[in-house]
Amino acid sequence: MAKIAILGFGTVGSGVAEAITKNAEIIQNKLSEKIELKYILDIREFPNNPFSEKIIKDFSIIQNDPEIEVVVETIGGAKIAYEFTKKALLSGKHVVTSNKELVATHGEELLRIAREKNVNYFFEASVGGTIPILTPLESCLGANKIEEIYGILNGTTNYILTRMIKANLSFEDALKEAQALGYAEQDPTADIEGHDACRKICILADLAYGKNISPEKVQTEGISNITLDDVTIAEAGRYVIKLLGRVKMREDGKIFILVAPHLIKNDHPLAVVNDVFNGILVRGNICEEVMFYGKGAGKLPTASAVIADVIDAVRHREKRKDYGWSGSGDDMVADLSEMVYSMYYRISDRHSGDCKAISEIYDHKCLSLEGAPDGEYAFVTKPMSGKEHEEKAALLQKKFPILSRIRVLDDQRESV
Amino acid sequence: MAKIAILGFGTVGSGVAEAITKNAEIIQNKLSEKIELKYILDIREFPNNPFSEKIIKDFSIIQNDPEIEVVVETIGGAKIAYEFTKKALLSGKHVVTSNKELVATHGEELLRIAREKNVNYFFEASVGGTIPILTPLESCLGANKIEEIYGILNGTTNYILTRMIKANLSFEDALKEAQALGYAEQDPTADIEGHDACRKICILADLAYGKNISPEKVQTEGISNITLDDVTIAEAGRYVIKLLGRVKMREDGKIFILVAPHLIKNDHPLAVVNDVFNGILVRGNICEEVMFYGKGAGKLPTASAVIADVIDAVRHREKRKDYGWSGSGDDMVADLSEMVYSMYYRISDRHSGDCKAISEIYDHKCLSLEGAPDGEYAFVTKPMSGKEHEEKAALLQKKFPILSRIRVLDDQRESV
Repeated sequence: MAKIAILGFGTVGSGVAEAITKNAEIIQNKLSEKIELKYILDIREFPNNPFSEKIIKDFSIIQNDPEIEVVVETIGGAKIAYEFTKKALLSGKHVVTSNKELVATHGEELLRIAREKNVNYFFEASVGGTIPILTPLESCLGANKIEEIYGILNGTTNYILTRMIKANLSFEDALKEAQALGYAEQDPTADIEGHDACRKICILADLAYGKNISPEKVQTEGISNITLDDVTIAEAGRYVIKLLGRVKMREDGKIFILVAPHLIKNDHPLAVVNDVFNGILVRGNICEEVMFYGKGAGKLPTASAVIADVIDAVRHREKRKDYGWSGSGDDMVADLSEMVYSMYYRISDRHSGDCKAISEIYDHKCLSLEGAPDGEYAFVTKPMSGKEHEEKAALLQKKFPILSRIRVLDDQRESV
Repeated sequence: MAKIAILGFGTVGSGVAEAITKNAEIIQNKLSEKIELKYILDIREFPNNPFSEKIIKDFSIIQNDPEIEVVVETIGGAKIAYEFTKKALLSGKHVVTSNKELVATHGEELLRIAREKNVNYFFEASVGGTIPILTPLESCLGANKIEEIYGILNGTTNYILTRMIKANLSFEDALKEAQALGYAEQDPTADIEGHDACRKICILADLAYGKNISPEKVQTEGISNITLDDVTIAEAGRYVIKLLGRVKMREDGKIFILVAPHLIKNDHPLAVVNDVFNGILVRGNICEEVMFYGKGAGKLPTASAVIADVIDAVRHREKRKDYGWSGSGDDMVADLSEMVYSMYYRISDRHSGDCKAISEIYDHKCLSLEGAPDGEYAFVTKPMSGKEHEEKAALLQKKFPILSRIRVLDDQRESV
């Protein structure tokens, strides 16, 4: 019998309580012992809830109860959650969380405490929701040099972009719809400006390279500037626009890391990752390309990943699993001006397609403008460094107002 | 320091030797100890090979060497591989394999011996090549009731179907091309008739449901009857044809299990799994839908999964991981006449589209016949049981010669 406590009875916390009760028998068979939910910590009242008798308001009861082996932290944020996690680990309890903000900002310190106290600190649910990604990355792909990880890491923005692509909604209308459906917060900044995806790509980079990458070091761009015109032109050119988190290792061991919208080819496996789904692609030097796909958020899907970590923590209660990272990796981060990539441009052009003037600046491929306003021109450049992109954009801007520019994912995948 | 031996220096065995040498430092960092390849067992000579001095011909040297902790079996087949695996386990050595035939046919017995001898028997590489699927299924999705698993489990047939779809090759020409490229064996029966996919869906079912499903219990149909006409008609109807292995649990706990070609919607995540790639979708009662994608075969990709298991075996050398199944699950297998699904038909019809006569038999959706011969008609039925399909097909056959019929994957996925 392993007894656990849940901190925070919000969406994920209540999902964990519900799923651990619903699937009790399956979990018991898997683990050869029962998991019992003893406490739920929340400051609110839940009078008519089936779990109301487990709800307590004083964290010290959990901290001081020797029966509690695993603490599930689903409070979110990096304040109280940080304080309670630290106390739980210091009291010798395993901690499992879905809190990406906490892991991205204080993960290194919390992992160090877990190491010192010989307990597990697991956070599979912090990236990709239900998708098993951190365990496979650390364990199943453990024999690989990880060359690259990129993916759709935020379900809210993916929902918005999917609705722009499939229903021709404007960004604003798609956002409103996402808010109405509960997929986006009333203050959607963390999602639409890419901060959430940034925390997740940092956690993936931390695990892949064993060093802590600070979110502040990551150039982060959201989707609020993406227009329906861009989405439509991209589609006509057999591309879709997706917000990607990316980390890529250079030959010299430095990494490029960024969050930005990208045009990706419509036959790329990530192109069919729609709605609130996430998809994460890992490229290793021996596994080649592996992709993981599933619901990036939601009550029960996230609970699935949390409970898997609870099971794993109990399985490794004696010999902890040393997943994680130590030390700062901020000096590994290379300047994006050295990264080579192609770029999509949409420019204002009174002569509609003044290829000659553009060709003097760019070796480029014109995109069809089906459905786009007159007097515009859209093209994709050949790959070049970020520095060259800046230089050439300055030249372009002198002749043609730049309406938008979006990175293109240069696809290295094999194809028949 | 953990010392290992490889049995069989073929494609996968030599890939393991190469990758374990190439990525020695990464593996050592991951494991906090070195892995040393001490022996390679093979009856052949490899005079100019960098590993030639490790090659031995006598298995008993490995069996009796107390330094050998992990034996990597990459011989293939279920004869010598079975004998050596048994001896290695009985000698208290962990065994790791990519041999799906052995695992599907003797896995239960070998797992029982491993349990008795307190050693690990791992076989991640036996399904999905490089894709982490068995560990995530057992561990990361461990809190779920697995409702359904289906996927593209065989790279050879997926290559052939991809070439039929993308290059309009006939089945025979696509097979010849696959053979020339080394993707198909000179005797391609095991792949094209679905036997390989059958072993893999059995292993997935075994793990998901904890009982041994015999490959002989699984209705298995290959792709040798798929014609270019069907591929073309499917494409015009926004479908692609893929060979799927499927296992699905009914409410009463019985399972439907089969291998057969299927029409799947072209916006389904498996539809973009092309060439020699595999894709496996798992649906659980709390994780919802999770998909895994990667190279289903190949020297280094398969080695990646094998070495991950070696690392895991060493990590769990004291406390073994009890992954696996016990007892027979053959009485769980339900008759496919009770399974409900839609079916694609192509029939000979002199009057080209005698909807009335067909509508008397089937509630159906006509498919465009763009590019197909005159005097044919193709349609997709509404879902019905296998039994009803047989009854109606007998009626249909009386009026119209049936040229082909292929199952349709009824897609339960959400969409915007």
